[in-house]
Amino acid sequence: MKAVILGAGNLASSLAPALARAGVEIVQVFSRTEQSAARLALCLNNLQATRVLTTSSLKDIKPDAELYIYAIRDDALPEVIEQVAALGCGGEALHMHTSGSAPLETLSKCFRRAAVFYPFQTFTLNAEVDFSHVPIFIEATDDLTLGQVRTIALLLTQNIYVADESQRKRLHIAGVFANNFSNAMFAIASEQLQRAGLPFSVLLPLITQTAQKVHRMSPKQAQTGPAARHDLGTIAEHLEKLGGQEQQIYQLLTDYILQHISPDTEN
Amino acid sequence: MKAVILGAGNLASSLAPALARAGVEIVQVFSRTEQSAARLALCLNNLQATRVLTTSSLKDIKPDAELYIYAIRDDALPEVIEQVAALGCGGEALHMHTSGSAPLETLSKCFRRAAVFYPFQTFTLNAEVDFSHVPIFIEATDDLTLGQVRTIALLLTQNIYVADESQRKRLHIAGVFANNFSNAMFAIASEQLQRAGLPFSVLLPLITQTAQKVHRMSPKQAQTGPAARHDLGTIAEHLEKLGGQEQQIYQLLTDYILQHISPDTEN
Repeated sequence: MKAVILGAGNLASSLAPALARAGVEIVQVFSRTEQSAARLALCLNNLQATRVLTTSSLKDIKPDAELYIYAIRDDALPEVIEQVAALGCGGEALHMHTSGSAPLETLSKCFRRAAVFYPFQTFTLNAEVDFSHVPIFIEATDDLTLGQVRTIALLLTQNIYVADESQRKRLHIAGVFANNFSNAMFAIASEQLQRAGLPFSVLLPLITQTAQKVHRMSPKQAQTGPAARHDLGTIAEHLEKLGGQEQQIYQLLTDYILQHISPDTEN
Repeated sequence: MKAVILGAGNLASSLAPALARAGVEIVQVFSRTEQSAARLALCLNNLQATRVLTTSSLKDIKPDAELYIYAIRDDALPEVIEQVAALGCGGEALHMHTSGSAPLETLSKCFRRAAVFYPFQTFTLNAEVDFSHVPIFIEATDDLTLGQVRTIALLLTQNIYVADESQRKRLHIAGVFANNFSNAMFAIASEQLQRAGLPFSVLLPLITQTAQKVHRMSPKQAQTGPAARHDLGTIAEHLEKLGGQEQQIYQLLTDYILQHISPDTEN
């Protein structure tokens, strides 16, 4: 199966090599940034027998591939899709995007065989992801296409779910809380440690345990801390030591825990 | 070394067995809740040769132990300490509390040899903690006592830091963000998934990766998501799907990331 990948960012840079390793032939990488396309191509050329082409111009997208993967920012999707449609790819080609938020229609209004292929994971350049643990949420214009998308997903993982747009959006919001906002909490914690002259590394065992606990119990059961034990004295003391947005965040999240997450016992 | 542990909550229930395994003889467990004391004693009796006593009355605390560990809520500390001091324990006994927020003076005003022994980790009943990875922050009235506290800490871990009250408070705040608030984010994510009819388990690979990434890069480098890539369209869409406190939290944390955590590249 010959595939063109549009995008060379965090997700594309994890997904394209994983597909290449699984036997998909990546024939071309498109990125607005030539350097990004070249970096991903360098990686792919080490993984497959045939050399991958790169382009930063949508007009040069190869129209004869079997699979087109749109792994680009949501706000760039409509324009890129429109321009690829203008190239007149074959009607049998499968076009799929990897977005949690964009509807299937973004693609299906331009292509007969369209799909969504949303890997629910955080991707960062140079942080390799083991796809065998990544749930992939799929949707397609028709059952035949869905079957084909499932086959592609199965190259990477057994965790495949069919999800419609509404489920996927809710999932994306869940991911923002679970990953993006947790990570922002780590960033604030890191700044607090810097102020105390302590290294970030002292936080790592706590962060690891935080993630491990919810594998064995629900987040509500795992909740600890001053708010969970209604320790208003400590909360007041902490608020006094914080300022600006950090203080607002502490207050709001404490209120949330006090109101929604049932109190725990001592410590 | 004969030790009395005051408290039978989350921390005490992890710490006392870990010390017993390392050879400390726990002679007595105090808890206001008899059932909690009995549960911890049951566990300790399987780990050491001598049977542990339990009490729910401070007047019955044994005054002849060498070590008293106060693993209780901050707001209960002053009263418990005062009552134990009234028993007239020997002047050579070491009294240490496990709080991130309470000052050393809470103890040192009543006992000649006082210390703080703050294990920086989240503790929950039935979630075993491997202390060898837990950093322990210590402080003591004098060098001799500090040396003894270090010896006790070394029974559990190599990660021992001397930290004063101000550092410990900052550390405690960092812990609230890194653990308590991250966990609250998981709780909100879990509710979003419920609404989509999806199981919490689909979040676990993302949560694991979120924790693993900051072992290899800073939280700022690890930040992804709509706010990090300034994807205002997706942010507006998510805010529209949320209400109440969840919406406020989404807005505030998004503003924080937009302002403080530098933008990432595609996806």
